[in-house]
Amino acid sequence: MANVLLGKDVADQMSEELIERAARLRENGVEPTLAIVRVGEEGDDLAYERGALKRAEKVGVKVCVRTLPLDVSQEAILQEIEGINADPAIHGCLMFRPLPSHLDEQTICDTLVPEKDIDGISSASMAGVFMGSGKGFAPCTAKASMAVLNHYGIPVKGARATVIGRSLVIGRPVAMMLLQEHATVTICHTRTVDLESITRESDIIIACAGKAEMVTAPMVAEGQTIIDVGINVTEDGRLSGDVAFDEVEPIVANITPVPRGVGSVTTTVLMQHVIEAAEKTTA
Amino acid sequence: MANVLLGKDVADQMSEELIERAARLRENGVEPTLAIVRVGEEGDDLAYERGALKRAEKVGVKVCVRTLPLDVSQEAILQEIEGINADPAIHGCLMFRPLPSHLDEQTICDTLVPEKDIDGISSASMAGVFMGSGKGFAPCTAKASMAVLNHYGIPVKGARATVIGRSLVIGRPVAMMLLQEHATVTICHTRTVDLESITRESDIIIACAGKAEMVTAPMVAEGQTIIDVGINVTEDGRLSGDVAFDEVEPIVANITPVPRGVGSVTTTVLMQHVIEAAEKTTA
Repeated sequence: MANVLLGKDVADQMSEELIERAARLRENGVEPTLAIVRVGEEGDDLAYERGALKRAEKVGVKVCVRTLPLDVSQEAILQEIEGINADPAIHGCLMFRPLPSHLDEQTICDTLVPEKDIDGISSASMAGVFMGSGKGFAPCTAKASMAVLNHYGIPVKGARATVIGRSLVIGRPVAMMLLQEHATVTICHTRTVDLESITRESDIIIACAGKAEMVTAPMVAEGQTIIDVGINVTEDGRLSGDVAFDEVEPIVANITPVPRGVGSVTTTVLMQHVIEAAEKTTA
Repeated sequence: MANVLLGKDVADQMSEELIERAARLRENGVEPTLAIVRVGEEGDDLAYERGALKRAEKVGVKVCVRTLPLDVSQEAILQEIEGINADPAIHGCLMFRPLPSHLDEQTICDTLVPEKDIDGISSASMAGVFMGSGKGFAPCTAKASMAVLNHYGIPVKGARATVIGRSLVIGRPVAMMLLQEHATVTICHTRTVDLESITRESDIIIACAGKAEMVTAPMVAEGQTIIDVGINVTEDGRLSGDVAFDEVEPIVANITPVPRGVGSVTTTVLMQHVIEAAEKTTA
Protein backbone atom coordinates (compact mmCIF):
# COMPACT_ATOMS: atom_id res chain seq x y z
CA MET A 1 0.00 0.00 0.00
CA ALA A 2 1.62 3.22 -1.19
CA ASN A 3 1.09 6.72 0.10
CA VAL A 4 -1.11 8.33 -2.50
CA LEU A 5 0.32 11.79 -3.17
CA LEU A 6 -2.70 14.00 -3.76
CA GLY A 7 -2.21 17.14 -5.80
CA LYS A 8 -4.88 18.99 -3.85
CA ASP A 9 -2.79 19.11 -0.67
CA VAL A 10 0.13 20.58 -2.61
CA ALA A 11 -2.07 23.10 -4.41
CA ASP A 12 -3.87 24.14 -1.24
CA GLN A 13 -0.67 24.85 0.64
CA MET A 14 0.78 26.77 -2.30
CA SER A 15 -2.47 28.70 -2.71
CA GLU A 16 -2.44 29.92 0.89
CA GLU A 17 0.83 31.69 0.30
CA LEU A 18 -0.22 32.91 -3.14
CA ILE A 19 -3.41 34.50 -1.79
CA GLU A 20 -1.29 36.60 0.56
CA ARG A 21 1.16 37.58 -2.14
CA ALA A 22 -1.65 38.55 -4.55
CA ALA A 23 -3.27 40.64 -1.80
CA ARG A 24 0.03 42.41 -1.15
CA LEU A 25 0.36 43.21 -4.84
CA ARG A 26 -3.15 44.69 -4.86
CA GLU A 27 -2.32 46.85 -1.85
CA ASN A 28 0.50 48.24 -3.93
CA GLY A 29 -1.84 48.96 -6.82
CA VAL A 30 -0.84 45.98 -8.96
CA GLU A 31 -3.53 43.54 -10.08
CA PRO A 32 -1.75 40.32 -11.04
CA THR A 33 -3.13 39.47 -14.47
CA LEU A 34 -2.92 36.46 -16.76
CA ALA A 35 -3.76 36.57 -20.46
CA ILE A 36 -4.88 33.28 -21.99
CA VAL A 37 -4.51 32.98 -25.76
CA ARG A 38 -6.71 30.25 -27.16
CA VAL A 39 -7.09 29.36 -30.84
CA GLY A 40 -10.36 27.54 -31.48
CA GLU A 41 -12.52 25.66 -28.99
CA GLU A 42 -10.63 22.44 -28.40
CA GLY A 43 -12.13 20.39 -25.54
CA ASP A 44 -8.88 19.84 -23.63
CA ASP A 45 -8.04 23.54 -23.84
CA LEU A 46 -11.48 24.52 -22.56
CA ALA A 47 -11.24 22.05 -19.67
CA TYR A 48 -7.81 23.38 -18.68
CA GLU A 49 -9.05 26.94 -19.04
CA ARG A 50 -11.97 26.30 -16.68
CA GLY A 51 -9.55 24.89 -14.11
CA ALA A 52 -7.26 27.87 -14.51
CA LEU A 53 -10.11 30.38 -14.14
CA LYS A 54 -11.26 28.67 -10.96
CA ARG A 55 -7.78 28.62 -9.48
CA ALA A 56 -7.16 32.23 -10.52
CA GLU A 57 -10.31 33.35 -8.76
CA LYS A 58 -9.28 31.47 -5.63
CA VAL A 59 -5.84 33.07 -5.35
CA GLY A 60 -6.80 36.49 -6.69
CA VAL A 61 -5.37 36.61 -10.19
CA LYS A 62 -7.28 38.40 -12.92
CA VAL A 63 -7.63 36.52 -16.21
CA CYS A 64 -8.46 37.84 -19.65
CA VAL A 65 -9.07 35.27 -22.35
CA ARG A 66 -8.21 36.17 -25.95
CA THR A 67 -9.87 33.78 -28.36
CA LEU A 68 -8.79 33.57 -31.95
CA PRO A 69 -10.46 31.70 -34.83
CA LEU A 70 -8.98 28.40 -36.03
CA ASP A 71 -7.98 30.03 -39.32
CA VAL A 72 -6.18 32.92 -37.61
CA SER A 73 -3.24 34.21 -39.65
CA GLN A 74 0.37 34.18 -38.48
CA GLU A 75 0.35 37.99 -38.56
CA ALA A 76 -2.78 38.26 -36.41
CA ILE A 77 -1.54 35.93 -33.68
CA LEU A 78 1.89 37.61 -33.64
CA GLN A 79 0.11 40.94 -33.26
CA GLU A 80 -1.85 39.51 -30.34
CA ILE A 81 1.36 38.36 -28.61
CA GLU A 82 3.08 41.66 -29.29
CA GLY A 83 0.10 43.46 -27.78
CA ILE A 84 0.48 41.32 -24.64
CA ASN A 85 4.23 42.05 -24.54
CA ALA A 86 3.52 45.77 -24.66
CA ASP A 87 0.65 45.84 -22.16
CA PRO A 88 1.94 46.69 -18.66
CA ALA A 89 -1.34 45.48 -17.13
CA ILE A 90 -0.63 41.88 -18.22
CA HIS A 91 2.02 39.97 -16.28
CA GLY A 92 1.87 36.54 -17.80
CA CYS A 93 0.60 34.77 -20.90
CA LEU A 94 -0.59 31.19 -21.35
CA MET A 95 -1.05 30.10 -24.95
CA PHE A 96 -2.64 26.73 -25.67
CA ARG A 97 -0.72 24.39 -27.95
CA PRO A 98 -0.42 22.74 -30.34
CA LEU A 99 -1.46 25.57 -32.63
CA PRO A 100 -3.13 24.77 -35.97
CA SER A 101 -0.55 23.43 -38.41
CA HIS A 102 -0.64 26.42 -40.77
CA LEU A 103 0.99 28.54 -38.05
CA ASP A 104 4.74 28.69 -37.30
CA GLU A 105 4.44 27.75 -33.64
CA GLN A 106 8.07 28.22 -32.58
CA THR A 107 8.25 31.74 -33.99
CA ILE A 108 5.04 32.63 -32.18
CA CYS A 109 6.34 31.16 -28.90
CA ASP A 110 9.64 33.02 -29.26
CA THR A 111 7.81 36.31 -29.78
CA LEU A 112 6.51 36.24 -26.22
CA VAL A 113 8.94 38.11 -23.93
CA PRO A 114 10.56 35.80 -21.32
CA GLU A 115 9.29 38.00 -18.48
CA LYS A 116 5.69 37.07 -19.37
CA ASP A 117 6.37 33.53 -20.56
CA ILE A 118 4.93 31.91 -17.45
CA ASP A 119 4.52 28.47 -19.06
CA GLY A 120 8.04 28.28 -20.45
CA ILE A 121 7.22 28.01 -24.15
CA SER A 122 9.94 30.26 -25.60
CA SER A 123 13.50 29.25 -26.48
CA ALA A 124 14.74 31.79 -23.93
CA SER A 125 12.82 30.03 -21.14
CA MET A 126 14.08 26.66 -22.37
CA ALA A 127 17.66 27.97 -22.18
CA GLY A 128 17.00 29.07 -18.59
CA VAL A 129 15.79 25.59 -17.60
CA PHE A 130 18.67 23.88 -19.41
CA MET A 131 21.33 26.17 -17.98
CA GLY A 132 19.77 26.32 -14.50
CA SER A 133 20.23 30.07 -14.68
CA GLY A 134 16.97 30.89 -12.91
CA LYS A 135 16.02 33.11 -15.84
CA GLY A 136 12.50 32.83 -17.20
CA PHE A 137 9.93 30.27 -16.08
CA ALA A 138 9.87 26.48 -16.40
CA PRO A 139 6.92 24.72 -18.04
CA CYS A 140 4.19 24.48 -15.38
CA THR A 141 3.74 20.70 -15.50
CA ALA A 142 7.46 20.10 -15.00
CA LYS A 143 7.47 22.47 -12.05
CA ALA A 144 4.29 20.88 -10.66
CA SER A 145 6.04 17.49 -10.62
CA MET A 146 8.89 18.98 -8.62
CA ALA A 147 6.40 20.72 -6.30
CA VAL A 148 4.77 17.36 -5.49
CA LEU A 149 8.17 15.81 -4.65
CA ASN A 150 9.13 18.77 -2.49
CA HIS A 151 5.77 19.06 -0.71
CA TYR A 152 5.81 15.43 0.35
CA GLY A 153 9.46 15.57 1.39
CA ILE A 154 10.68 13.00 -1.13
CA PRO A 155 14.49 13.23 -1.16
CA VAL A 156 15.77 14.33 -4.58
CA LYS A 157 19.42 15.13 -3.84
CA GLY A 158 21.51 12.06 -4.61
CA ALA A 159 18.42 10.08 -5.66
CA ARG A 160 18.33 8.09 -8.88
CA ALA A 161 15.54 9.51 -10.99
CA THR A 162 14.27 8.10 -14.27
CA VAL A 163 12.26 10.27 -16.62
CA ILE A 164 10.27 8.29 -19.19
CA GLY A 165 9.67 10.67 -22.07
CA ARG A 166 11.79 13.39 -23.65
CA SER A 167 9.29 16.03 -24.75
CA LEU A 168 10.08 19.72 -24.44
CA VAL A 169 6.90 20.31 -22.45
CA ILE A 170 7.73 17.90 -19.65
CA GLY A 171 10.42 15.20 -20.14
CA ARG A 172 13.50 17.30 -20.86
CA PRO A 173 12.66 20.20 -18.53
CA VAL A 174 11.79 17.98 -15.56
CA ALA A 175 15.06 16.06 -16.14
CA MET A 176 16.97 19.34 -15.92
CA MET A 177 15.07 20.42 -12.79
CA LEU A 178 15.85 17.10 -11.10
CA LEU A 179 19.50 17.53 -12.10
CA GLN A 180 19.46 21.05 -10.67
CA GLU A 181 18.34 19.54 -7.34
CA HIS A 182 21.24 17.05 -7.58
CA ALA A 183 19.43 13.88 -8.61
CA THR A 184 21.23 11.41 -10.87
CA VAL A 185 18.94 11.54 -13.88
CA THR A 186 18.30 9.01 -16.64
CA ILE A 187 16.18 10.03 -19.63
CA CYS A 188 14.35 7.13 -21.31
CA HIS A 189 12.15 7.11 -24.39
CA THR A 190 10.67 4.93 -27.11
CA ARG A 191 14.13 3.79 -28.31
CA THR A 192 15.25 2.73 -24.83
CA VAL A 193 16.26 -0.92 -24.66
CA ASP A 194 15.29 -2.87 -21.50
CA LEU A 195 13.43 0.01 -19.85
CA GLU A 196 12.44 -2.30 -17.02
CA SER A 197 15.97 -2.79 -15.76
CA ILE A 198 16.46 0.97 -15.60
CA THR A 199 13.21 1.90 -13.90
CA ARG A 200 13.54 -0.87 -11.29
CA GLU A 201 16.80 0.63 -10.05
CA SER A 202 15.42 4.17 -9.67
CA ASP A 203 14.29 5.93 -6.52
CA ILE A 204 11.98 8.25 -8.44
CA ILE A 205 10.16 7.58 -11.72
CA ILE A 206 8.59 10.43 -13.65
CA ALA A 207 6.20 8.87 -16.17
CA CYS A 208 5.60 11.32 -18.99
CA ALA A 209 5.58 9.19 -22.11
CA GLY A 210 1.98 10.00 -23.04
CA LYS A 211 1.10 6.30 -23.28
CA ALA A 212 -1.73 4.92 -21.15
CA GLU A 213 -0.70 2.58 -18.32
CA MET A 214 2.71 1.78 -19.81
CA VAL A 215 4.40 1.62 -16.39
CA THR A 216 3.46 -1.82 -15.09
CA ALA A 217 4.25 -3.94 -12.03
CA PRO A 218 7.44 -5.57 -13.39
CA MET A 219 8.93 -2.11 -13.97
CA VAL A 220 8.74 -0.90 -10.39
CA ALA A 221 10.19 -1.86 -7.01
CA GLU A 222 9.64 -1.36 -3.30
CA GLY A 223 10.40 2.04 -1.83
CA GLN A 224 10.02 3.97 -5.08
CA THR A 225 8.16 7.22 -5.69
CA ILE A 226 6.12 7.33 -8.90
CA ILE A 227 5.06 10.67 -10.38
CA ASP A 228 2.50 10.08 -13.11
CA VAL A 229 2.25 13.01 -15.49
CA GLY A 230 0.21 11.22 -18.14
CA ILE A 231 -3.36 12.11 -18.97
CA ASN A 232 -4.81 9.61 -21.43
CA VAL A 233 -8.24 8.40 -22.36
CA THR A 234 -8.33 4.60 -22.59
CA GLU A 235 -10.22 2.67 -25.26
CA ASP A 236 -13.10 2.09 -22.85
CA GLY A 237 -13.32 5.81 -22.16
CA ARG A 238 -11.65 5.98 -18.74
CA LEU A 239 -9.18 8.73 -17.81
CA SER A 240 -5.82 7.12 -17.10
CA GLY A 241 -2.24 8.09 -16.43
CA ASP A 242 0.94 6.61 -17.87
CA VAL A 243 1.04 4.26 -14.89
CA ALA A 244 -1.09 1.15 -14.36
CA PHE A 245 -2.08 2.44 -10.93
CA ASP A 246 -3.89 -0.63 -9.63
CA GLU A 247 -0.95 -2.97 -10.13
CA VAL A 248 1.84 -0.52 -9.29
CA GLU A 249 0.38 1.05 -6.15
CA PRO A 250 0.65 -2.09 -3.96
CA ILE A 251 4.40 -2.33 -4.66
CA VAL A 252 5.81 1.20 -4.40
CA ALA A 253 6.14 3.64 -1.49
CA ASN A 254 4.57 6.76 -3.02
CA ILE A 255 2.47 7.38 -6.10
CA THR A 256 0.44 10.20 -7.62
CA PRO A 257 -3.02 9.25 -8.90
CA VAL A 258 -4.57 10.34 -12.21
CA PRO A 259 -6.75 12.36 -11.93
CA ARG A 260 -6.13 14.25 -8.66
CA GLY A 261 -2.33 14.10 -8.90
CA VAL A 262 0.14 16.35 -10.71
CA GLY A 263 -2.63 17.79 -12.88
CA SER A 264 -4.22 19.39 -9.82
CA VAL A 265 -1.02 21.33 -9.13
CA THR A 266 -0.31 22.68 -12.62
CA THR A 267 -2.77 25.57 -12.60
CA THR A 268 -1.53 26.60 -9.15
CA VAL A 269 2.02 26.74 -10.48
CA LEU A 270 0.66 28.86 -13.33
CA MET A 271 -0.75 31.34 -10.79
CA GLN A 272 2.51 31.25 -8.84
CA HIS A 273 4.35 32.26 -12.00
CA VAL A 274 1.90 35.09 -12.76
CA ILE A 275 2.28 36.46 -9.24
CA GLU A 276 6.07 36.13 -9.41
CA ALA A 277 6.08 37.94 -12.76
CA ALA A 278 3.89 40.69 -11.29
CA GLU A 279 6.15 41.01 -8.25
CA LYS A 280 9.17 41.43 -10.52
CA THR A 281 7.52 44.42 -12.23
CA THR A 282 7.29 46.19 -8.87
CA ALA A 283 10.81 45.35 -7.68
CA MET B 1 43.25 -4.67 -25.26
CA ALA B 2 40.91 -1.92 -26.39
CA ASN B 3 40.81 -0.18 -29.72
CA VAL B 4 42.40 3.18 -29.07
CA LEU B 5 40.25 5.79 -30.79
CA LEU B 6 42.67 8.38 -32.09
CA GLY B 7 41.36 11.89 -32.65
CA LYS B 8 43.75 12.45 -35.54
CA ASP B 9 41.94 9.96 -37.80
CA VAL B 10 38.63 11.69 -37.13
CA ALA B 11 40.10 15.15 -37.67
CA ASP B 12 41.91 14.13 -40.86
CA GLN B 13 38.79 12.71 -42.45
CA MET B 14 36.74 15.75 -41.48
CA SER B 15 39.48 18.07 -42.74
CA GLU B 16 39.50 16.49 -46.19
CA GLU B 17 35.88 17.47 -46.68
CA LEU B 18 36.38 20.90 -45.07
CA ILE B 19 39.27 21.77 -47.39
CA GLU B 20 36.96 21.23 -50.36
CA ARG B 21 34.14 23.24 -48.83
CA ALA B 22 36.47 26.14 -47.95
CA ALA B 23 37.85 26.11 -51.50
CA ARG B 24 34.34 26.23 -52.91
CA LEU B 25 33.54 29.22 -50.72
CA ARG B 26 36.65 31.04 -51.96
CA GLU B 27 35.64 30.34 -55.57
CA ASN B 28 32.41 32.14 -54.75
CA GLY B 29 34.30 35.09 -53.32
CA VAL B 30 33.77 34.21 -49.65
CA GLU B 31 36.79 33.79 -47.39
CA PRO B 32 35.66 31.77 -44.38
CA THR B 33 36.90 33.77 -41.40
CA LEU B 34 37.11 33.14 -37.67
CA ALA B 35 37.60 35.88 -35.09
CA ILE B 36 39.26 34.80 -31.86
CA VAL B 37 38.66 37.06 -28.85
CA ARG B 38 41.26 36.53 -26.16
CA VAL B 39 41.50 38.46 -22.89
CA GLY B 40 45.04 38.29 -21.47
CA GLU B 41 47.73 35.73 -22.21
CA GLU B 42 46.61 32.62 -20.32
CA GLY B 43 48.73 29.56 -21.17
CA ASP B 44 45.82 27.20 -21.94
CA ASP B 45 44.22 29.81 -24.20
CA LEU B 46 47.48 30.35 -26.08
CA ALA B 47 47.99 26.60 -26.53
CA TYR B 48 44.46 26.16 -27.87
CA GLU B 49 44.91 29.20 -30.10
CA ARG B 50 48.07 27.76 -31.62
CA GLY B 51 46.22 24.53 -32.37
CA ALA B 52 43.32 26.45 -33.91
CA LEU B 53 45.63 28.56 -36.09
CA LYS B 54 47.38 25.45 -37.37
CA ARG B 55 44.12 23.67 -38.15
CA ALA B 56 42.66 26.82 -39.75
CA GLU B 57 45.66 27.08 -42.07
CA LYS B 58 45.30 23.43 -43.01
CA VAL B 59 41.64 23.65 -44.00
CA GLY B 60 41.74 27.19 -45.40
CA VAL B 61 40.02 29.33 -42.79
CA LYS B 62 41.30 32.84 -42.15
CA VAL B 63 41.73 33.78 -38.49
CA CYS B 64 41.99 37.22 -36.92
CA VAL B 65 42.89 37.34 -33.26
CA ARG B 66 41.58 40.22 -31.16
CA THR B 67 43.51 40.48 -27.91
CA LEU B 68 42.19 42.54 -25.04
CA PRO B 69 43.98 43.50 -21.81
CA LEU B 70 43.12 41.64 -18.58
CA ASP B 71 41.54 44.82 -17.18
CA VAL B 72 39.31 45.33 -20.23
CA SER B 73 36.01 47.01 -19.36
CA GLN B 74 32.60 45.43 -19.91
CA GLU B 75 31.81 48.19 -22.40
CA ALA B 76 34.96 47.60 -24.41
CA ILE B 77 34.47 43.85 -24.76
CA LEU B 78 30.79 44.30 -25.64
CA GLN B 79 31.86 46.78 -28.30
CA GLU B 80 34.32 44.22 -29.66
CA ILE B 81 31.57 41.56 -29.87
CA GLU B 82 29.14 44.00 -31.47
CA GLY B 83 31.80 44.88 -34.01
CA ILE B 84 32.14 41.19 -34.87
CA ASN B 85 28.35 40.84 -35.13
CA ALA B 86 28.24 43.71 -37.60
CA ASP B 87 31.23 42.67 -39.71
CA PRO B 88 30.07 40.66 -42.76
CA ALA B 89 33.66 39.45 -43.34
CA ILE B 90 33.64 37.50 -40.05
CA HIS B 91 31.62 34.26 -39.99
CA GLY B 92 32.34 32.88 -36.55
CA CYS B 93 33.70 33.99 -33.20
CA LEU B 94 35.57 32.00 -30.56
CA MET B 95 35.95 33.74 -27.22
CA PHE B 96 38.14 32.15 -24.57
CA ARG B 97 36.58 31.64 -21.15
CA PRO B 98 36.42 32.01 -18.25
CA LEU B 99 36.66 35.78 -18.58
CA PRO B 100 38.18 37.81 -15.71
CA SER B 101 35.73 37.95 -12.80
CA HIS B 102 35.01 41.70 -13.08
CA LEU B 103 33.19 41.01 -16.37
CA ASP B 104 29.58 39.84 -16.72
CA GLU B 105 30.37 36.76 -18.80
CA GLN B 106 26.82 35.62 -19.59
CA THR B 107 25.78 39.04 -20.91
CA ILE B 108 28.88 39.13 -23.10
CA CYS B 109 28.19 35.61 -24.42
CA ASP B 110 24.56 36.47 -25.12
CA THR B 111 25.61 39.54 -27.11
CA LEU B 112 27.19 37.38 -29.80
CA VAL B 113 24.62 36.64 -32.53
CA PRO B 114 23.75 32.92 -32.77
CA GLU B 115 24.76 32.83 -36.45
CA LYS B 116 28.39 33.52 -35.45
CA ASP B 117 28.36 31.66 -32.14
CA ILE B 118 30.37 28.73 -33.46
CA ASP B 119 31.35 27.46 -29.99
CA GLY B 120 27.82 27.50 -28.55
CA ILE B 121 28.38 29.98 -25.71
CA SER B 122 25.14 31.98 -25.94
CA SER B 123 21.81 31.12 -24.33
CA ALA B 124 20.28 30.94 -27.80
CA SER B 125 22.75 28.22 -28.83
CA MET B 126 22.12 26.38 -25.55
CA ALA B 127 18.38 26.45 -26.29
CA GLY B 128 19.09 24.96 -29.71
CA VAL B 129 21.06 22.07 -28.19
CA PHE B 130 18.46 21.46 -25.49
CA MET B 131 15.52 21.58 -27.87
CA GLY B 132 17.30 19.67 -30.63
CA SER B 133 16.06 22.35 -32.99
CA GLY B 134 19.21 22.43 -35.10
CA LYS B 135 19.44 26.19 -34.53
CA GLY B 136 22.81 27.62 -33.64
CA PHE B 137 25.95 25.59 -32.94
CA ALA B 138 26.74 23.13 -30.17
CA PRO B 139 29.86 23.60 -28.03
CA CYS B 140 32.79 22.21 -30.04
CA THR B 141 34.02 19.71 -27.44
CA ALA B 142 30.56 18.16 -27.09
CA LYS B 143 30.29 17.86 -30.85
CA ALA B 144 33.84 16.46 -31.07
CA SER B 145 32.85 13.66 -28.67
CA MET B 146 29.92 12.77 -30.92
CA ALA B 147 32.18 12.97 -34.00
CA VAL B 148 34.53 10.38 -32.46
CA LEU B 149 31.62 8.00 -31.76
CA ASN B 150 30.25 8.45 -35.26
CA HIS B 151 33.59 8.16 -37.04
CA TYR B 152 34.41 4.84 -35.38
CA GLY B 153 30.90 3.50 -35.94
CA ILE B 154 30.04 3.11 -32.25
CA PRO B 155 26.27 2.50 -32.08
CA VAL B 156 24.52 5.31 -30.20
CA LYS B 157 20.86 4.61 -30.98
CA GLY B 158 19.39 2.53 -28.16
CA ALA B 159 22.73 2.47 -26.32
CA ARG B 160 22.97 3.25 -22.63
CA ALA B 161 25.21 6.28 -22.26
CA THR B 162 26.48 7.72 -19.00
CA VAL B 163 27.79 11.26 -18.89
CA ILE B 164 29.94 12.00 -15.85
CA GLY B 165 29.78 15.77 -15.37
CA ARG B 166 27.02 18.31 -15.87
CA SER B 167 28.82 21.44 -17.05
CA LEU B 168 27.31 23.69 -19.69
CA VAL B 169 30.45 23.43 -21.80
CA ILE B 170 30.36 19.66 -22.16
CA GLY B 171 28.25 17.52 -19.78
CA ARG B 172 24.76 18.85 -20.43
CA PRO B 173 25.18 19.52 -24.17
CA VAL B 174 26.72 16.11 -24.91
CA ALA B 175 23.90 14.48 -22.93
CA MET B 176 21.36 16.24 -25.14
CA MET B 177 23.24 15.32 -28.31
CA LEU B 178 23.32 11.64 -27.27
CA LEU B 179 19.59 11.86 -26.52
CA GLN B 180 19.02 13.41 -29.93
CA GLU B 181 20.69 10.34 -31.45
CA HIS B 182 18.37 8.13 -29.38
CA ALA B 183 20.70 6.94 -26.63
CA THR B 184 19.28 6.34 -23.16
CA VAL B 185 21.24 8.92 -21.22
CA THR B 186 22.17 9.12 -17.54
CA ILE B 187 23.77 12.30 -16.20
CA CYS B 188 26.02 11.74 -13.17
CA HIS B 189 27.91 14.28 -11.07
CA THR B 190 29.59 14.88 -7.72
CA ARG B 191 26.36 14.14 -5.79
CA THR B 192 25.77 10.82 -7.55
CA VAL B 193 25.56 7.91 -5.14
CA ASP B 194 27.18 4.62 -6.23
CA LEU B 195 28.53 5.91 -9.52
CA GLU B 196 30.21 2.56 -10.13
CA SER B 197 26.98 0.62 -10.45
CA ILE B 198 25.72 3.11 -13.05
CA THR B 199 28.85 3.30 -15.19
CA ARG B 200 29.32 -0.49 -15.21
CA GLU B 201 25.92 -0.92 -16.88
CA SER B 202 26.57 1.59 -19.65
CA ASP B 203 27.56 0.96 -23.24
CA ILE B 204 29.17 4.39 -23.58
CA ILE B 205 30.81 6.48 -20.87
CA ILE B 206 31.59 10.15 -21.50
CA ALA B 207 34.02 11.23 -18.78
CA CYS B 208 33.88 15.01 -18.40
CA ALA B 209 34.08 15.59 -14.68
CA GLY B 210 37.33 17.53 -14.83
CA LYS B 211 38.95 15.26 -12.24
CA ALA B 212 42.17 13.43 -13.12
CA GLU B 213 41.89 9.65 -13.52
CA MET B 214 38.61 9.38 -11.64
CA VAL B 215 37.27 6.60 -13.88
CA THR B 216 39.03 3.48 -12.60
CA ALA B 217 38.95 -0.25 -13.37
CA PRO B 218 36.07 -1.16 -11.02
CA MET B 219 33.83 1.39 -12.79
CA VAL B 220 34.06 -0.14 -16.25
CA ALA B 221 33.14 -3.38 -17.98
CA GLU B 222 33.88 -5.40 -21.09
CA GLY B 223 32.55 -4.15 -24.39
CA GLN B 224 32.25 -0.50 -23.34
CA THR B 225 33.33 2.61 -25.22
CA ILE B 226 35.03 5.26 -23.10
CA ILE B 227 35.26 8.85 -24.35
CA ASP B 228 37.64 10.80 -22.15
CA VAL B 229 37.07 14.54 -22.39
CA GLY B 230 39.20 15.48 -19.38
CA ILE B 231 42.44 17.41 -19.69
CA ASN B 232 44.16 17.58 -16.32
CA VAL B 233 47.69 18.07 -15.11
CA THR B 234 48.54 15.56 -12.39
CA GLU B 235 50.57 16.40 -9.28
CA ASP B 236 53.69 14.96 -10.88
CA GLY B 237 53.18 17.17 -13.93
CA ARG B 238 51.81 14.62 -16.41
CA LEU B 239 48.91 15.44 -18.72
CA SER B 240 46.03 13.11 -17.90
CA GLY B 241 42.38 12.61 -18.76
CA ASP B 242 39.48 11.87 -16.43
CA VAL B 243 40.11 8.17 -17.04
CA ALA B 244 42.90 6.05 -15.51
CA PHE B 245 43.88 4.86 -18.99
CA ASP B 246 46.40 2.18 -18.02
CA GLU B 247 43.97 0.24 -15.84
CA VAL B 248 40.81 0.84 -17.89
CA GLU B 249 42.19 0.15 -21.36
CA PRO B 250 42.74 -3.61 -20.86
CA ILE B 251 39.08 -4.09 -19.86
CA VAL B 252 36.98 -2.05 -22.32
CA ALA B 253 36.40 -2.34 -26.07
CA ASN B 254 37.15 1.23 -27.18
CA ILE B 255 38.82 4.18 -25.48
CA THR B 256 40.08 7.62 -26.44
CA PRO B 257 43.54 8.53 -25.13
CA VAL B 258 44.55 11.86 -23.57
CA PRO B 259 46.27 13.55 -25.29
CA ARG B 260 45.56 12.54 -28.93
CA GLY B 261 41.86 11.83 -28.35
CA VAL B 262 38.82 14.15 -28.32
CA GLY B 263 41.04 17.20 -27.91
CA SER B 264 42.53 16.60 -31.37
CA VAL B 265 39.06 16.85 -32.92
CA THR B 266 37.80 20.01 -31.21
CA THR B 267 39.59 22.57 -33.38
CA THR B 268 38.46 20.71 -36.51
CA VAL B 269 34.85 20.98 -35.33
CA LEU B 270 35.51 24.68 -34.78
CA MET B 271 36.57 25.02 -38.43
CA GLN B 272 33.57 22.96 -39.54
CA HIS B 273 31.31 25.44 -37.75
CA VAL B 274 33.04 28.47 -39.29
CA ILE B 275 32.68 26.99 -42.76
CA GLU B 276 29.05 26.07 -42.11
CA ALA B 277 28.38 29.62 -40.86
CA ALA B 278 30.07 31.04 -43.97
CA GLU B 279 28.05 28.74 -46.24
CA LYS B 280 24.84 29.95 -44.61
CA THR B 281 25.66 33.55 -45.51
CA THR B 282 25.83 32.60 -49.17
CA ALA B 283 22.66 30.48 -49.20
